Formats: sequence, C-alpha cells, structure tokens
Amino acid sequence: MTQKGLLIVISGPSGCGKGTICKELRRQHPEIKVSVSATTREIRSGETDGKDYFFISKEEFERHIEEGEFLEYARIYSGNYYGTPKKYVRDTLLSGNDLILEIDIQGALQVKEKFEEGVFIFLVPPSMEELHRRLVQRGRETPELIMERFKAAYEEMNFINRYNYVVTNDKVDEAIRKIEAIIAAEKCRVIRNDALLNEILNGGV
Amino acid sequence: MTQKGLLIVISGPSGCGKGTICKELRRQHPEIKVSVSATTREIRSGETDGKDYFFISKEEFERHIEEGEFLEYARIYSGNYYGTPKKYVRDTLLSGNDLILEIDIQGALQVKEKFEEGVFIFLVPPSMEELHRRLVQRGRETPELIMERFKAAYEEMNFINRYNYVVTNDKVDEAIRKIEAIIAAEKCRVIRNDALLNEILNGGV
Repeated sequence: MTQKGLLIVISGPSGCGKGTICKELRRQHPEIKVSVSATTREIRSGETDGKDYFFISKEEFERHIEEGEFLEYARIYSGNYYGTPKKYVRDTLLSGNDLILEIDIQGALQVKEKFEEGVFIFLVPPSMEELHRRLVQRGRETPELIMERFKAAYEEMNFINRYNYVVTNDKVDEAIRKIEAIIAAEKCRVIRNDALLNEILNGGV
Repeated sequence: MTQKGLLIVISGPSGCGKGTICKELRRQHPEIKVSVSATTREIRSGETDGKDYFFISKEEFERHIEEGEFLEYARIYSGNYYGTPKKYVRDTLLSGNDLILEIDIQGALQVKEKFEEGVFIFLVPPSMEELHRRLVQRGRETPELIMERFKAAYEEMNFINRYNYVVTNDKVDEAIRKIEAIIAAEKCRVIRNDALLNEILNGGV
C-alpha cells in the first residue's frame, strides 16, 4: 500500500533563507514535488501555465475563494491574488508524493487551520544580526523597507510555537540534513501508518 | 546552552528484534547512553555493579518503589525485581546525553505515564510469520512457551497506538537509519527548543 505523501510547509520570517533552502532541497531531492500556486497576475515570457503558476482570472480566483478551494491565499499591494489550490495539494499527496510549500508565516498559519496533518517547519536565522545582514545583502529593498521587514521579523519569531519543528539556517547543508531527518521521521509516525498494523497481522501464520 | 538529552524508548512484542536493534544502535553510536536497570538478583561473575545493573537488596528495591523512584519496574517469576531508576535517567538527560531504554511493552507503558516527553518507538516485524520464525530460531524457549509468546505478540501489537513512531525491523540497517532520523527530528521539535528563541533574539543587533 502506498503511504500518503507529506505536505512539508517551510516557513519563517523574511530573511531566514526559505528560498535558498527550498531551492537546494529541490535540487537534492527531485522526487519531492513543489506546490504550484494560483495567481491573477499576467503570465510573463518564459513562464508556463500549470508549472510556474496556475494563471487564472480575478473572477475565477474569487469564485474559488468562495468555494473554499484554497488552503491559503493573499491579495498583495498590486491587487493581485496568490493562493495554494487545495485540489493540487490533495491530488499530489494521494498519489504518494511529498510536497514542499514555501510560504510566509501568515500563509502557513492559514494552511495549519485547514490541514493540520502537514509538517510545519520554522526556519530561523542563527541570530537577528545575521538576519539583518541577509536582508541588506539581497539588495531587493530600500533601507526603510529593510528596517520594516527587520522589525516585522522580530514579531514573526513569536509564531514559532505554532510550528512543529524549528531548523536553524546557519549552514545550508546542515539545515537540509535536518529537514531530511524530519521527513523520514514523520513517515514513521504511528498516526501516519494506519494500514501497517493490518498488513502485518494479515500476513501472519 | 546544552539541549537536554532524549529518552529513546525502544519497545515492541517479543521477537520483534529489540535486542538486535539496540545492540547495533549502541555499536554505531557509542555517544548514546544505555539505561542501567536496578535488580535484586545476585551479581554474576564478570558483571560490574553500576554498569551491567545496579545490584540492590530486596528491601532497598521495595523502599525505592514506595518512594516512587522507578520509572517502571516489574517482579518476574523468579521473585526478583527489575526496574529503571528515575534518578539515573534524569541525570543522564540533564547532562545533555541521549539515553536508550530497551524495554517490553508493559514497561514502556509505565514509562510513558511518568515521562511523556520520551520518544516512544514501537518495533514491528515485517510479518507475524517472520516473528514466529524468529521466536523459534532464537531457541530459548519450549514449543509451548513459543506459542504462548506468539499469541501474546498478537495482543501486544494493539498497543502500537500508545507509541509515537513505528519502525519495521526487516533489514537492521534500514531500521537503524530510521531511528537516527527520529532522534535528529525530535531534537528539532519546537517544544524541545524553548531556549533557542531567546538566544536568537538576544543575539540581535
């Protein structure tokens, strides 16, 4: 019998290095699927519908919201929606594949309400000083926005208690080894192995 | 800050291979401590007090029972007592060392009542047929006793739901890899990392 796949939610404050960790995890583990989000923004050159995103209209997105078809969604400052379709997640897990969802804290908390059997991993920087350095180094934002994100990160750290696991992102490879161990251990949880007992007993003499 | 060690309880029905797995785990991981039991039986030649067992008198054992100083204990058919001293376990874990406790199901359930933060691993055979073969092969018991143990093992399998993890003992090395993953993952549990958040926040800019 195929065991259901795991939904592995990788989350944490801005600057914790979610993107780097998920990219490396995918590189080392091509067998793990990555969640594809739905969005209302325009498709860009080089993007493929159903691979990079599911590109849908605002009307369709709002209908899906009403019908409860998102595990989580958000409307960003541009007015565009982004969301994680329940059906995609469910189908992937039922086929026995594990699925990574890289997501900010607000999104992860929404997912947790609807899908408690997910594995919720909180990535933390080795120190707030290091997190600040990373926010500056990535050079995406103005100094004001960096300061805003940095302050937000302090607040966000308090959500750690809503997660199952905490992994310090100091050395990328060490963090990956820990996430691998978490995935392997979760597959051994008694609550994820309902069918095993019957299999053993029915194979008896 | 040193993280507290883990109490790793390895348990399962007779014939599941607890002994083999724990021996191999100790061989590959000499850093993991092994719980030393107290007993009232006579010391045998070649045994060392405090290493093989804590050899104590019946009176002392019964006083410790009254004072609640055992995580679990049992009196076997010979009339001798065997038990796991709380103090030894507590001291080992506080010093940051992990500790393996290889124990039958009745003992594991007693430990769980007193020490819920332990990591409870249920070892299962790949099939009941295989378990029967192992009971016969070890050649320790009469055919009647083997049949009794085999029947008991069927009943004992139902206690799986009281455990956190289930590991199939088919190939020893695969089982060891799974137990290693469980240990590494448990060290990442948010509930075991109270101090981490403070460390990160207090190291901030």
